[in-house]
Amino acid sequence: MADQAFVTLATNDSYARGAMVLGKSLRNHNTSKKLVVLIGPQVSEPCKSLLKSIYDEVRVVDVLDSGDTAHLSMMKRPDLGVTFTKLHCWTLTQYSKCVFMDADTLVLSNIDELFDREELSAAPDPGWPDCFNSGVFVFCPSMETHGKLLQYCTEHGSFDGGDQGVLNGFFSDWATADISKHLPFIYNLSSIAIYTYLPAFKQYGGSAKVVHFLGKTKPWSYKYDPKTKRVTGSVQEADTHSTFLLDWWNLYSTAVVPMMHEEYGDQPFHSG
Amino acid sequence: MADQAFVTLATNDSYARGAMVLGKSLRNHNTSKKLVVLIGPQVSEPCKSLLKSIYDEVRVVDVLDSGDTAHLSMMKRPDLGVTFTKLHCWTLTQYSKCVFMDADTLVLSNIDELFDREELSAAPDPGWPDCFNSGVFVFCPSMETHGKLLQYCTEHGSFDGGDQGVLNGFFSDWATADISKHLPFIYNLSSIAIYTYLPAFKQYGGSAKVVHFLGKTKPWSYKYDPKTKRVTGSVQEADTHSTFLLDWWNLYSTAVVPMMHEEYGDQPFHSG
Ligand SMILES: O=c1ccn([C@@H]2O[C@H](COP(=O)(O)OP(=O)(O)O)[C@@H](O)[C@H]2O)c(=O)[nH]1
Ligand SMILES: O=c1ccn([C@@H]2O[C@H](COP(=O)(O)OP(=O)(O)O)[C@@H](O)[C@H]2O)c(=O)[nH]1
Ligand SMILES: [Mn+2]
Ligand SMILES: [Mn+2]
Repeated sequence: MADQAFVTLATNDSYARGAMVLGKSLRNHNTSKKLVVLIGPQVSEPCKSLLKSIYDEVRVVDVLDSGDTAHLSMMKRPDLGVTFTKLHCWTLTQYSKCVFMDADTLVLSNIDELFDREELSAAPDPGWPDCFNSGVFVFCPSMETHGKLLQYCTEHGSFDGGDQGVLNGFFSDWATADISKHLPFIYNLSSIAIYTYLPAFKQYGGSAKVVHFLGKTKPWSYKYDPKTKRVTGSVQEADTHSTFLLDWWNLYSTAVVPMMHEEYGDQPFHSG
Repeated sequence: MADQAFVTLATNDSYARGAMVLGKSLRNHNTSKKLVVLIGPQVSEPCKSLLKSIYDEVRVVDVLDSGDTAHLSMMKRPDLGVTFTKLHCWTLTQYSKCVFMDADTLVLSNIDELFDREELSAAPDPGWPDCFNSGVFVFCPSMETHGKLLQYCTEHGSFDGGDQGVLNGFFSDWATADISKHLPFIYNLSSIAIYTYLPAFKQYGGSAKVVHFLGKTKPWSYKYDPKTKRVTGSVQEADTHSTFLLDWWNLYSTAVVPMMHEEYGDQPFHSG
Protein backbone atom coordinates (compact mmCIF):
# COMPACT_ATOMS: atom_id res chain seq x y z
CA MET A 1 0.00 0.00 0.00
CA ALA A 2 1.37 3.36 -1.06
CA ASP A 3 0.18 5.15 2.05
CA GLN A 4 1.93 2.83 4.48
CA ALA A 5 5.64 2.86 5.20
CA PHE A 6 8.45 1.48 7.29
CA VAL A 7 10.43 4.38 8.75
CA THR A 8 13.89 4.51 10.28
CA LEU A 9 16.35 7.17 11.39
CA ALA A 10 20.08 7.72 10.98
CA THR A 11 21.77 10.91 12.15
CA ASN A 12 25.28 9.83 11.14
CA ASP A 13 27.12 7.43 8.82
CA SER A 14 27.37 4.67 11.43
CA TYR A 15 23.64 4.42 11.96
CA ALA A 16 23.24 4.90 8.20
CA ARG A 17 25.04 1.58 7.75
CA GLY A 18 22.45 0.03 10.05
CA ALA A 19 19.67 1.65 8.02
CA MET A 20 21.10 0.18 4.80
CA VAL A 21 21.07 -3.33 6.23
CA LEU A 22 17.60 -2.87 7.70
CA GLY A 23 16.28 -1.59 4.35
CA LYS A 24 17.87 -4.50 2.50
CA SER A 25 16.39 -6.99 4.96
CA LEU A 26 12.91 -5.53 4.45
CA ARG A 27 13.31 -5.69 0.64
CA ASN A 28 14.66 -9.24 0.78
CA HIS A 29 11.52 -10.30 2.57
CA ASN A 30 9.37 -8.70 -0.11
CA THR A 31 7.63 -5.98 1.82
CA SER A 32 4.81 -4.31 -0.08
CA LYS A 33 5.25 -1.10 1.94
CA LYS A 34 7.21 2.04 1.19
CA LEU A 35 10.59 2.50 2.89
CA VAL A 36 11.47 5.88 4.40
CA VAL A 37 14.67 6.93 6.12
CA LEU A 38 15.03 10.17 8.07
CA ILE A 39 18.63 11.35 8.05
CA GLY A 40 20.50 14.09 9.85
CA PRO A 41 22.46 16.77 8.00
CA GLN A 42 25.80 15.14 8.97
CA VAL A 43 25.17 12.02 6.89
CA SER A 44 27.74 12.06 4.07
CA GLU A 45 26.80 12.32 0.39
CA PRO A 46 27.93 8.78 -0.56
CA CYS A 47 25.83 7.36 2.28
CA LYS A 48 22.87 9.45 1.33
CA SER A 49 23.10 8.32 -2.24
CA LEU A 50 23.32 4.66 -1.21
CA LEU A 51 20.32 5.05 1.05
CA LYS A 52 18.44 6.53 -1.93
CA SER A 53 19.01 3.35 -3.91
CA ILE A 54 17.53 1.22 -1.10
CA TYR A 55 14.79 3.47 0.31
CA ASP A 56 11.83 5.01 -1.51
CA GLU A 57 12.29 8.26 0.36
CA VAL A 58 15.31 9.80 2.07
CA ARG A 59 14.31 12.84 4.06
CA VAL A 60 16.80 15.16 5.67
CA VAL A 61 15.50 16.34 9.00
CA ASP A 62 16.99 19.04 11.15
CA VAL A 63 14.78 19.64 14.12
CA LEU A 64 16.14 23.13 14.62
CA ASP A 65 14.84 24.11 11.19
CA SER A 66 11.59 22.25 11.25
CA GLY A 67 9.17 24.88 12.50
CA ASP A 68 8.30 26.97 15.50
CA THR A 69 7.01 24.38 17.96
CA ALA A 70 9.93 22.04 17.52
CA HIS A 71 12.39 24.89 17.54
CA LEU A 72 11.07 26.30 20.79
CA SER A 73 10.83 22.91 22.47
CA MET A 74 14.34 22.10 21.43
CA MET A 75 15.70 25.35 22.83
CA LYS A 76 14.31 24.46 26.23
CA ARG A 77 15.60 20.88 26.14
CA PRO A 78 18.84 20.81 24.19
CA ASP A 79 19.68 17.48 25.84
CA LEU A 80 16.97 15.68 23.89
CA GLY A 81 18.38 16.17 20.39
CA VAL A 82 18.15 12.71 18.84
CA THR A 83 14.86 12.13 20.66
CA PHE A 84 13.29 15.17 19.04
CA THR A 85 14.55 13.91 15.71
CA LYS A 86 12.92 10.49 16.19
CA LEU A 87 9.59 12.12 17.08
CA HIS A 88 9.81 13.78 13.68
CA CYS A 89 8.42 10.59 12.16
CA TRP A 90 4.93 11.73 13.19
CA THR A 91 5.18 14.50 10.58
CA LEU A 92 5.18 12.01 7.67
CA THR A 93 1.51 12.75 7.03
CA GLN A 94 1.48 11.55 3.43
CA TYR A 95 1.33 8.09 5.04
CA SER A 96 -1.71 6.99 7.02
CA LYS A 97 0.15 4.38 9.03
CA CYS A 98 3.81 3.61 9.62
CA VAL A 99 6.07 1.20 11.48
CA PHE A 100 9.13 2.84 13.00
CA MET A 101 12.20 0.63 13.29
CA ASP A 102 15.51 1.53 14.91
CA ALA A 103 18.49 1.49 12.56
CA ASP A 104 19.99 -1.26 14.74
CA THR A 105 17.22 -3.75 13.92
CA LEU A 106 17.28 -6.56 11.37
CA VAL A 107 14.22 -8.16 9.77
CA LEU A 108 14.21 -11.97 9.51
CA SER A 109 10.90 -12.52 7.70
CA ASN A 110 8.07 -10.52 6.13
CA ILE A 111 6.40 -8.42 8.84
CA ASP A 112 3.83 -6.49 6.80
CA GLU A 113 1.14 -7.86 9.14
CA LEU A 114 2.27 -5.22 11.67
CA PHE A 115 0.19 -2.73 9.68
CA ASP A 116 -2.96 -4.46 10.98
CA ARG A 117 -2.14 -2.96 14.39
CA GLU A 118 -3.11 0.45 15.71
CA GLU A 119 -1.16 3.32 17.24
CA LEU A 120 0.67 2.85 19.55
CA SER A 121 1.59 -0.82 19.28
CA ALA A 122 4.97 -2.01 20.49
CA ALA A 123 6.66 -4.96 22.19
CA PRO A 124 7.54 -5.05 25.89
CA ASP A 125 10.99 -3.97 27.00
CA PRO A 126 12.98 -6.70 28.71
CA GLY A 127 14.25 -5.16 31.92
CA TRP A 128 11.14 -3.17 32.81
CA PRO A 129 8.41 -5.05 30.94
CA ASP A 130 5.58 -2.58 31.72
CA CYS A 131 7.40 -0.22 29.38
CA PHE A 132 7.39 -0.85 25.67
CA ASN A 133 10.64 -0.82 23.77
CA SER A 134 10.71 2.05 21.29
CA GLY A 135 12.88 0.23 18.75
CA VAL A 136 9.83 -1.06 16.83
CA PHE A 137 6.42 0.61 16.98
CA VAL A 138 3.28 1.16 14.91
CA PHE A 139 2.08 4.76 14.66
CA CYS A 140 -0.14 7.08 12.65
CA PRO A 141 1.53 10.26 11.39
CA SER A 142 -0.33 13.37 12.54
CA MET A 143 0.82 16.96 13.02
CA GLU A 144 -1.48 17.19 16.02
CA THR A 145 0.10 14.19 17.73
CA HIS A 146 3.54 15.49 16.81
CA GLY A 147 2.80 18.81 18.48
CA LYS A 148 1.48 17.12 21.60
CA LEU A 149 4.54 14.87 21.76
CA LEU A 150 6.90 17.84 21.57
CA GLN A 151 4.91 19.63 24.23
CA TYR A 152 4.96 16.57 26.48
CA CYS A 153 8.66 16.20 25.88
CA THR A 154 9.38 19.82 26.75
CA GLU A 155 7.23 19.80 29.88
CA HIS A 156 8.09 16.39 31.30
CA GLY A 157 11.39 15.52 29.67
CA SER A 158 12.34 11.89 29.37
CA PHE A 159 12.76 9.66 32.41
CA ASP A 160 15.55 7.79 30.66
CA GLY A 161 16.95 10.68 28.68
CA GLY A 162 15.85 9.17 25.35
CA ASP A 163 12.82 8.65 23.14
CA GLN A 164 11.72 5.52 25.00
CA GLY A 165 11.13 7.49 28.19
CA VAL A 166 9.15 10.18 26.36
CA LEU A 167 7.01 7.74 24.38
CA ASN A 168 6.21 5.62 27.43
CA GLY A 169 5.28 8.73 29.37
CA PHE A 170 3.01 9.94 26.57
CA PHE A 171 1.42 6.57 25.69
CA SER A 172 1.20 5.76 29.37
CA ASP A 173 -1.67 3.26 29.28
CA TRP A 174 0.16 0.82 27.02
CA ALA A 175 0.76 -1.68 29.83
CA THR A 176 -2.86 -1.84 30.97
CA ALA A 177 -5.27 -0.80 28.21
CA ASP A 178 -5.31 -3.06 25.15
CA ILE A 179 -3.61 -6.39 24.57
CA SER A 180 -3.72 -5.95 20.78
CA LYS A 181 -1.23 -3.10 21.18
CA HIS A 182 1.25 -5.51 22.70
CA LEU A 183 3.34 -6.78 19.81
CA PRO A 184 4.74 -10.23 20.44
CA PHE A 185 8.30 -10.02 21.70
CA ILE A 186 9.54 -11.83 18.55
CA TYR A 187 8.90 -8.58 16.63
CA ASN A 188 11.55 -6.85 18.73
CA LEU A 189 13.80 -9.49 20.13
CA SER A 190 16.46 -7.61 22.03
CA SER A 191 19.77 -9.37 21.87
CA ILE A 192 19.96 -8.82 25.66
CA ALA A 193 17.08 -11.28 26.20
CA ILE A 194 19.09 -14.13 24.75
CA TYR A 195 21.39 -14.45 27.71
CA THR A 196 19.10 -13.26 30.51
CA TYR A 197 16.64 -16.15 29.97
CA LEU A 198 18.32 -18.61 27.65
CA PRO A 199 15.74 -21.43 27.98
CA ALA A 200 12.98 -19.07 26.77
CA PHE A 201 15.15 -18.01 23.86
CA LYS A 202 15.73 -21.64 22.96
CA GLN A 203 11.98 -22.29 23.17
CA TYR A 204 10.69 -19.24 21.31
CA GLY A 205 13.72 -17.63 19.62
CA GLY A 206 13.37 -19.75 16.50
CA SER A 207 10.25 -17.74 15.61
CA ALA A 208 12.07 -14.40 15.82
CA LYS A 209 10.98 -11.93 13.13
CA VAL A 210 12.97 -8.87 14.13
CA VAL A 211 16.20 -8.81 16.10
CA HIS A 212 17.23 -5.60 17.85
CA PHE A 213 20.90 -5.04 18.68
CA LEU A 214 20.16 -2.69 21.53
CA GLY A 215 22.82 -1.42 23.86
CA LYS A 216 26.20 0.14 23.43
CA THR A 217 27.83 -2.35 21.06
CA LYS A 218 26.21 -2.29 17.62
CA PRO A 219 26.85 -4.76 14.79
CA TRP A 220 28.99 -2.16 13.03
CA SER A 221 31.17 -1.87 16.19
CA TYR A 222 32.65 -5.30 15.40
CA LYS A 223 35.09 -6.29 12.71
CA TYR A 224 34.20 -8.97 10.19
CA ASP A 225 36.32 -11.15 7.96
CA PRO A 226 34.33 -11.85 4.77
CA LYS A 227 36.65 -14.71 3.86
CA THR A 228 36.19 -16.74 7.03
CA LYS A 229 32.72 -15.26 7.60
CA ARG A 230 33.57 -14.61 11.24
CA VAL A 231 33.08 -11.64 13.52
CA THR A 232 35.96 -10.45 15.66
CA GLY A 233 36.08 -7.88 18.44
CA SER A 234 34.72 -8.15 21.95
CA VAL A 235 34.36 -11.93 21.79
CA GLN A 236 32.23 -12.40 24.88
CA GLU A 237 29.44 -10.17 23.67
CA ALA A 238 29.79 -11.41 20.10
CA ASP A 239 29.17 -14.93 21.32
CA THR A 240 25.90 -14.17 22.99
CA HIS A 241 24.14 -13.08 19.83
CA SER A 242 26.49 -14.62 17.34
CA THR A 243 24.10 -16.02 14.76
CA PHE A 244 22.09 -12.80 14.48
CA LEU A 245 25.30 -10.81 14.35
CA LEU A 246 26.52 -13.05 11.54
CA ASP A 247 23.18 -12.56 9.74
CA TRP A 248 23.70 -8.81 9.94
CA TRP A 249 27.28 -8.95 8.70
CA ASN A 250 26.45 -11.43 6.00
CA LEU A 251 23.78 -9.12 4.60
CA TYR A 252 26.04 -6.11 4.97
CA SER A 253 28.97 -7.71 3.15
CA THR A 254 26.96 -9.35 0.39
CA ALA A 255 24.34 -6.70 -0.33
CA VAL A 256 25.62 -3.35 0.91
CA VAL A 257 29.40 -3.42 0.44
CA PRO A 258 29.20 -4.32 -3.30
CA MET A 259 26.87 -1.36 -3.89
CA MET A 260 29.37 0.91 -2.17
CA HIS A 261 32.29 -0.38 -4.18
CA GLU A 262 30.40 -0.05 -7.41
CA GLU A 263 29.59 3.56 -6.80
CA TYR A 264 32.45 4.91 -4.71
CA GLY A 265 35.48 2.68 -4.59
CA ASP A 266 37.01 1.44 -1.38
CA GLN A 267 36.39 3.91 1.45
CA PRO A 268 33.09 5.69 1.07
CA PHE A 269 32.38 6.28 4.77
CA HIS A 270 33.95 9.24 6.50
CA SER A 271 31.82 10.35 9.42
CA GLY A 272 30.76 8.03 12.10
CA MET B 1 -12.87 -13.61 52.86
CA ALA B 2 -12.50 -17.08 54.30
CA ASP B 3 -12.44 -18.81 50.94
CA GLN B 4 -9.56 -16.78 49.57
CA ALA B 5 -5.94 -17.29 50.50
CA PHE B 6 -2.35 -16.32 49.85
CA VAL B 7 -0.31 -19.47 49.32
CA THR B 8 3.42 -20.08 49.42
CA LEU B 9 5.78 -23.05 49.40
CA ALA B 10 8.88 -24.04 51.36
CA THR B 11 10.51 -27.44 50.94
CA ASN B 12 13.34 -26.78 53.39
CA ASP B 13 14.29 -24.57 56.35
CA SER B 14 15.97 -21.91 54.18
CA TYR B 15 12.90 -21.24 52.12
CA ALA B 16 10.85 -21.56 55.33
CA ARG B 17 12.67 -18.46 56.61
CA GLY B 18 11.53 -16.68 53.45
CA ALA B 19 7.98 -17.89 54.02
CA MET B 20 8.06 -16.51 57.59
CA VAL B 21 9.08 -13.07 56.40
CA LEU B 22 6.54 -13.14 53.57
CA GLY B 23 3.76 -14.16 55.97
CA LYS B 24 4.73 -11.42 58.41
CA SER B 25 4.78 -8.83 55.62
CA LEU B 26 1.27 -9.84 54.55
CA ARG B 27 0.01 -9.64 58.16
CA ASN B 28 1.72 -6.26 58.72
CA HIS B 29 -0.21 -4.87 55.78
CA ASN B 30 -3.47 -6.14 57.23
CA THR B 31 -4.53 -8.68 54.67
CA SER B 32 -8.06 -9.94 55.12
CA LYS B 33 -7.20 -13.22 53.38
CA LYS B 34 -6.15 -16.58 54.80
CA LEU B 35 -2.47 -17.48 54.72
CA VAL B 36 -1.43 -20.98 53.66
CA VAL B 37 2.04 -22.47 53.44
CA LEU B 38 2.81 -25.77 51.74
CA ILE B 39 5.86 -27.40 53.27
CA GLY B 40 7.98 -30.38 52.37
CA PRO B 41 8.60 -33.22 54.80
CA GLN B 42 12.21 -32.05 55.43
CA VAL B 43 11.14 -28.82 57.10
CA SER B 44 12.21 -29.10 60.76
CA GLU B 45 9.77 -29.15 63.67
CA PRO B 46 10.80 -25.75 65.11
CA CYS B 47 10.33 -24.15 61.70
CA LYS B 48 7.01 -25.84 61.20
CA SER B 49 5.82 -24.66 64.57
CA LEU B 50 6.90 -21.09 63.84
CA LEU B 51 5.15 -21.16 60.49
CA LYS B 52 2.01 -22.31 62.33
CA SER B 53 2.05 -19.18 64.44
CA ILE B 54 2.19 -16.96 61.35
CA TYR B 55 0.08 -18.90 58.83
CA ASP B 56 -3.55 -20.01 59.17
CA GLU B 57 -2.72 -23.33 57.58
CA VAL B 58 0.51 -25.28 57.29
CA ARG B 59 0.08 -28.22 54.96
CA VAL B 60 2.73 -30.88 54.52
CA VAL B 61 2.85 -31.99 50.91
CA ASP B 62 4.76 -34.89 49.55
CA VAL B 63 4.02 -35.30 45.91
CA LEU B 64 5.00 -38.95 45.96
CA ASP B 65 2.25 -39.69 48.44
CA SER B 66 -0.41 -37.45 47.06
CA GLY B 67 -2.35 -39.75 44.77
CA ASP B 68 -2.05 -41.83 41.66
CA THR B 69 -1.84 -39.16 38.94
CA ALA B 70 0.84 -37.18 40.67
CA HIS B 71 2.71 -40.31 41.63
CA LEU B 72 2.77 -41.63 38.10
CA SER B 73 3.68 -38.29 36.60
CA MET B 74 6.46 -37.90 39.05
CA MET B 75 7.87 -41.31 38.30
CA LYS B 76 8.21 -40.33 34.65
CA ARG B 77 9.77 -36.93 35.35
CA PRO B 78 11.84 -37.22 38.54
CA ASP B 79 13.72 -34.04 37.50
CA LEU B 80 10.68 -31.87 38.13
CA GLY B 81 10.39 -32.45 41.87
CA VAL B 82 9.92 -28.95 43.28
CA THR B 83 7.84 -28.02 40.24
CA PHE B 84 5.36 -30.81 40.95
CA THR B 85 5.20 -29.62 44.54
CA LYS B 86 4.37 -26.05 43.49
CA LEU B 87 1.57 -27.27 41.20
CA HIS B 88 0.12 -28.87 44.31
CA CYS B 89 -1.39 -25.47 45.20
CA TRP B 90 -4.22 -26.21 42.73
CA THR B 91 -5.44 -28.92 45.11
CA LEU B 92 -6.40 -26.38 47.81
CA THR B 93 -10.04 -26.64 46.78
CA GLN B 94 -11.48 -25.35 50.06
CA TYR B 95 -10.50 -21.95 48.63
CA SER B 96 -12.23 -20.53 45.57
CA LYS B 97 -9.38 -18.22 44.63
CA CYS B 98 -5.76 -17.92 45.70
CA VAL B 99 -2.65 -15.87 45.07
CA PHE B 100 0.53 -17.90 44.98
CA MET B 101 3.69 -16.10 46.09
CA ASP B 102 7.23 -17.43 46.02
CA ALA B 103 8.90 -17.70 49.43
CA ASP B 104 11.51 -15.21 48.19
CA THR B 105 8.98 -12.39 47.81
CA LEU B 106 8.28 -9.53 50.22
CA VAL B 107 5.05 -7.53 50.38
CA LEU B 108 5.40 -3.74 50.72
CA SER B 109 1.72 -2.75 50.95
CA ASN B 110 -1.73 -4.33 51.08
CA ILE B 111 -2.31 -6.29 47.86
CA ASP B 112 -5.73 -7.84 48.54
CA GLU B 113 -6.95 -6.21 45.32
CA LEU B 114 -5.19 -9.03 43.45
CA PHE B 115 -8.21 -11.19 44.27
CA ASP B 116 -10.25 -9.12 41.79
CA ARG B 117 -8.24 -10.81 39.03
CA GLU B 118 -8.94 -14.11 37.33
CA GLU B 119 -6.89 -17.24 36.69
CA LEU B 120 -4.21 -17.05 35.40
CA SER B 121 -3.06 -13.51 36.17
CA ALA B 122 0.64 -12.77 36.56
CA ALA B 123 3.23 -10.11 35.84
CA PRO B 124 5.62 -10.23 32.88
CA ASP B 125 9.05 -11.75 33.32
CA PRO B 126 11.90 -9.34 32.72
CA GLY B 127 14.22 -11.08 30.31
CA TRP B 128 11.60 -12.74 28.12
CA PRO B 129 8.57 -10.49 28.69
CA ASP B 130 6.08 -12.61 26.70
CA CYS B 131 6.41 -15.10 29.53
CA PHE B 132 4.89 -14.39 32.89
CA ASN B 133 6.98 -14.74 36.00
CA SER B 134 5.61 -17.53 38.18
CA GLY B 135 6.68 -15.93 41.46
CA VAL B 136 3.30 -14.22 41.93
CA PHE B 137 0.10 -15.47 40.29
CA VAL B 138 -3.66 -15.57 40.78
CA PHE B 139 -5.27 -18.98 40.37
CA CYS B 140 -8.41 -20.97 41.16
CA PRO B 141 -7.86 -24.30 42.93
CA SER B 142 -9.40 -27.18 41.01
CA MET B 143 -8.61 -30.88 40.98
CA GLU B 144 -9.41 -30.93 37.28
CA THR B 145 -6.89 -28.19 36.49
CA HIS B 146 -4.36 -29.88 38.77
CA GLY B 147 -4.72 -33.11 36.85
CA LYS B 148 -4.34 -31.36 33.51
CA LEU B 149 -1.27 -29.52 34.74
CA LEU B 150 0.40 -32.75 35.86
CA GLN B 151 -0.46 -34.36 32.56
CA TYR B 152 0.95 -31.38 30.63
CA CYS B 153 4.04 -31.45 32.76
CA THR B 154 4.60 -35.15 32.18
CA GLU B 155 4.01 -34.95 28.43
CA HIS B 156 5.81 -31.72 27.60
CA GLY B 157 8.19 -31.21 30.50
CA SER B 158 9.35 -27.71 31.29
CA PHE B 159 11.31 -25.63 28.82
CA ASP B 160 13.29 -24.06 31.66
CA GLY B 161 13.32 -27.07 33.96
CA GLY B 162 11.09 -25.34 36.53
CA ASP B 163 7.49 -24.40 37.24
CA GLN B 164 7.69 -21.21 35.17
CA GLY B 165 8.30 -23.18 31.99
CA VAL B 166 5.42 -25.55 32.71
CA LEU B 167 2.94 -22.82 33.65
CA ASN B 168 3.79 -20.69 30.60
CA GLY B 169 3.43 -23.74 28.38
CA PHE B 170 0.04 -24.58 29.89
CA PHE B 171 -1.36 -21.03 30.09
CA SER B 172 0.13 -20.28 26.69
CA ASP B 173 -2.18 -17.46 25.62
CA TRP B 174 -1.21 -15.19 28.52
CA ALA B 175 0.84 -12.85 26.30
CA THR B 176 -1.89 -12.28 23.73
CA ALA B 177 -5.36 -12.95 25.17
CA ASP B 178 -6.44 -10.62 27.97
CA ILE B 179 -4.75 -7.50 29.31
CA SER B 180 -6.52 -7.82 32.67
CA LYS B 181 -4.48 -10.96 33.30
CA HIS B 182 -1.31 -8.92 33.06
CA LEU B 183 -0.53 -7.85 36.61
CA PRO B 184 1.41 -4.60 36.75
CA PHE B 185 5.11 -5.28 37.13
CA ILE B 186 5.10 -3.56 40.53
CA TYR B 187 3.29 -6.65 41.91
CA ASN B 188 6.35 -8.75 41.11
CA LEU B 189 9.29 -6.43 40.90
CA SER B 190 12.26 -8.67 40.27
CA SER B 191 15.36 -7.33 41.88
CA ILE B 192 17.10 -8.02 38.54
CA ALA B 193 15.08 -5.24 36.86
CA ILE B 194 16.58 -2.62 39.12
CA TYR B 195 19.95 -2.64 37.46
CA THR B 196 18.96 -3.63 33.92
CA TYR B 197 16.88 -0.47 33.43
CA LEU B 198 17.68 1.85 36.31
CA PRO B 199 15.85 4.96 34.96
CA ALA B 200 12.59 2.99 34.81
CA PHE B 201 13.16 1.76 38.34
CA LYS B 202 13.72 5.32 39.50
CA GLN B 203 10.55 6.41 37.72
CA TYR B 204 8.22 3.58 38.77
CA GLY B 205 9.99 1.67 41.54
CA GLY B 206 8.60 3.91 44.29
CA SER B 207 5.18 2.30 43.68
CA ALA B 208 6.50 -1.23 44.20
CA LYS B 209 4.06 -3.47 46.06
CA VAL B 210 5.90 -6.79 45.94
CA VAL B 211 9.63 -7.29 45.54
CA HIS B 212 10.90 -10.65 44.33
CA PHE B 213 14.47 -11.69 45.13
CA LEU B 214 14.75 -14.00 42.18
CA GLY B 215 17.98 -15.66 41.18
CA LYS B 216 20.62 -17.61 42.99
CA THR B 217 21.36 -15.27 45.89
CA LYS B 218 18.44 -15.04 48.30
CA PRO B 219 18.10 -12.59 51.20
CA TRP B 220 18.94 -15.38 53.61
CA SER B 221 22.20 -16.02 51.73
CA TYR B 222 23.61 -12.79 53.18
CA LYS B 223 24.73 -12.03 56.69
CA TYR B 224 23.19 -9.19 58.66
CA ASP B 225 24.40 -7.23 61.63
CA PRO B 226 21.33 -6.20 63.67
CA LYS B 227 23.36 -3.62 65.59
CA THR B 228 24.54 -1.61 62.58
CA LYS B 229 21.51 -2.70 60.54
CA ARG B 230 23.76 -3.54 57.61
CA VAL B 231 23.96 -6.49 55.25
CA THR B 232 27.31 -8.09 54.52
CA GLY B 233 28.29 -10.73 51.98
CA SER B 234 28.63 -10.39 48.22
CA VAL B 235 28.69 -6.61 48.32
CA GLN B 236 28.19 -5.97 44.64
CA GLU B 237 24.88 -7.77 44.47
CA ALA B 238 23.82 -6.49 47.85
CA ASP B 239 24.23 -2.95 46.59
CA THR B 240 21.90 -3.36 43.66
CA HIS B 241 18.87 -4.14 45.74
CA SER B 242 20.06 -2.82 49.03
CA THR B 243 16.98 -1.06 50.38
CA PHE B 244 14.69 -4.02 49.67
CA LEU B 245 17.26 -6.37 51.11
CA LEU B 246 17.40 -4.23 54.25
CA ASP B 247 13.59 -4.26 54.41
CA TRP B 248 13.68 -8.05 54.35
CA TRP B 249 16.36 -8.31 57.02
CA ASN B 250 14.77 -5.68 59.15
CA LEU B 251 11.51 -7.61 59.20
CA TYR B 252 13.31 -10.90 59.75
CA SER B 253 15.34 -9.62 62.70
CA THR B 254 12.56 -7.67 64.39
CA ALA B 255 9.58 -9.96 63.81
CA VAL B 256 10.84 -13.48 63.16
CA VAL B 257 14.03 -13.85 65.21
CA PRO B 258 12.37 -12.84 68.53
CA MET B 259 9.67 -15.48 67.98
CA MET B 260 12.35 -18.08 67.41
CA HIS B 261 14.26 -17.11 70.54
CA GLU B 262 11.12 -17.11 72.63
CA GLU B 263 10.22 -20.62 71.62
CA TYR B 264 13.52 -22.36 70.94
CA GLY B 265 16.54 -20.51 72.21
CA ASP B 266 19.45 -19.59 70.01
CA GLN B 267 19.81 -22.09 67.15
CA PRO B 268 16.47 -23.41 66.00
CA PHE B 269 17.38 -23.99 62.35
CA HIS B 270 19.16 -27.15 61.39
CA SER B 271 18.41 -28.07 57.81
CA GLY B 272 18.58 -25.79 54.87
O1 LIG C 1 23.45 8.93 17.38
C1 LIG C 1 22.37 8.37 17.10
C2 LIG C 1 21.65 7.63 18.05
C3 LIG C 1 20.47 7.03 17.66
N1 LIG C 1 19.98 7.15 16.40
C4 LIG C 1 18.71 6.54 16.01
O2 LIG C 1 17.94 6.30 17.18
C5 LIG C 1 17.76 4.89 17.37
C6 LIG C 1 17.80 4.54 18.85
O3 LIG C 1 19.12 4.57 19.35
P1 LIG C 1 19.88 3.20 19.71
O4 LIG C 1 19.42 2.12 18.78
O5 LIG C 1 21.36 3.48 19.75
O6 LIG C 1 19.35 2.91 21.18
P2 LIG C 1 19.16 1.47 21.88
O7 LIG C 1 18.20 0.68 21.02
O8 LIG C 1 20.52 0.83 21.97
O9 LIG C 1 18.57 1.79 23.22
C7 LIG C 1 18.86 4.27 16.53
O10 LIG C 1 18.60 2.91 16.18
C8 LIG C 1 18.90 5.17 15.34
O11 LIG C 1 17.79 4.93 14.47
C9 LIG C 1 20.71 7.88 15.46
O12 LIG C 1 20.29 7.98 14.31
N2 LIG C 1 21.88 8.48 15.83
O1 LIG D 1 14.49 -25.81 47.00
C1 LIG D 1 13.48 -25.12 46.82
C2 LIG D 1 13.33 -24.33 45.68
C3 LIG D 1 12.17 -23.58 45.51
N1 LIG D 1 11.20 -23.61 46.46
C4 LIG D 1 9.95 -22.83 46.27
O2 LIG D 1 9.81 -22.54 44.88
C5 LIG D 1 9.90 -21.11 44.68
C6 LIG D 1 10.60 -20.83 43.38
O3 LIG D 1 11.99 -21.01 43.50
P1 LIG D 1 12.99 -19.76 43.54
O4 LIG D 1 12.32 -18.60 44.21
O5 LIG D 1 14.29 -20.21 44.14
O6 LIG D 1 13.19 -19.45 41.99
P2 LIG D 1 13.49 -18.02 41.33
O7 LIG D 1 12.37 -17.10 41.73
O8 LIG D 1 14.82 -17.56 41.86
O9 LIG D 1 13.50 -18.32 39.87
C7 LIG D 1 10.60 -20.60 45.92
O10 LIG D 1 10.38 -19.21 46.16
C8 LIG D 1 9.99 -21.49 46.99
O11 LIG D 1 8.67 -21.07 47.29
C9 LIG D 1 11.34 -24.37 47.58
O12 LIG D 1 10.47 -24.39 48.44
N2 LIG D 1 12.48 -25.12 47.73
MN1 LIG E 1 18.10 0.41 19.01
MN1 LIG F 1 11.45 -16.76 43.46
